[in-house]
Amino acid sequence: MIILIDQDGPLADETARLFEILRERYPADLSRHSGVRTQFTLTDNFPAHLSEAIEEIRRSKGFYYSFPPVAGSVEAVNEMTRLGHRVYICTAPLSHYEHCIPEKYAWIERYLGSDFTMRIVPAKDKTVVRGNILIDDRPEVEGILEPEWEHVLFDASYNRHITHKRRLNWNSWKEVLGL
Amino acid sequence: MIILIDQDGPLADETARLFEILRERYPADLSRHSGVRTQFTLTDNFPAHLSEAIEEIRRSKGFYYSFPPVAGSVEAVNEMTRLGHRVYICTAPLSHYEHCIPEKYAWIERYLGSDFTMRIVPAKDKTVVRGNILIDDRPEVEGILEPEWEHVLFDASYNRHITHKRRLNWNSWKEVLGL
Repeated sequence: MIILIDQDGPLADETARLFEILRERYPADLSRHSGVRTQFTLTDNFPAHLSEAIEEIRRSKGFYYSFPPVAGSVEAVNEMTRLGHRVYICTAPLSHYEHCIPEKYAWIERYLGSDFTMRIVPAKDKTVVRGNILIDDRPEVEGILEPEWEHVLFDASYNRHITHKRRLNWNSWKEVLGL
Repeated sequence: MIILIDQDGPLADETARLFEILRERYPADLSRHSGVRTQFTLTDNFPAHLSEAIEEIRRSKGFYYSFPPVAGSVEAVNEMTRLGHRVYICTAPLSHYEHCIPEKYAWIERYLGSDFTMRIVPAKDKTVVRGNILIDDRPEVEGILEPEWEHVLFDASYNRHITHKRRLNWNSWKEVLGL
């Protein structure tokens, strides 16, 4: 199988890092926050007056490289590879690509090894990438083509309203995918 | 149609820039050179003692951004888009991605505009990218899948031995593709 895996969400914990930075910089705003990301669009999870600051954080040097790995993700990817599947990292970069794109590569190198950087396929439109399965936390993944892959949702607090797709996490992936 | 276009070769003239740098740094070696790239692998076009220097140049900051555009390429891409085709830049980055990958994006932004950076799909294995046509100067483009696209050769001095593929340049592309 060709398994495409989205980077931020399933592998790299952007949410955790963003909460960490915001708590540090905006303690008063964040003290009133549940701490749960309920919306896929990052800025929609915080007071509107923080939106510009959040966008600035996302564009800043070092942000994308600083995400902690999601628990179990690195082991799952290595296990998929050992099982003989072709794993590609299919990630949509920010339009402000300057730091985002090389740091996505550096992150993969750090946690999955330098050979894995040759398995990164950045694409704003993931429907142009081929695969059997796309593991992605985004509720709906759309583009110009009818996708070749099945979108399997990476389970998250902000996509629970989607009920018509298979859903997995790094404890359940083998059972869900029948591997 | 979805038209995938390789970046270095069809759009960005890596060969011209490399010759320019080598002539400057190694005038004695280059004075004996025909000035023609006859081999696809860059280092194979120069004396063996320059190989390491060439690899170092390719990894260096500023190299990928400095390529001049191939004559007619920018106009051709804009015309394809105007005709209603979906153009994606499908480019295989260096394993030493640090400067290469962001500079490939910056190059596209500079010559094709910032919206076009969302149409870059970097992939070491281009068979995982979908399209009707791949315009690429590499003699053979292979990967783990049977490609969905037809490889149309971008005509170059180092791929003339390939005779079983359609071949185009930026003067002939409309006729060759029947557009």
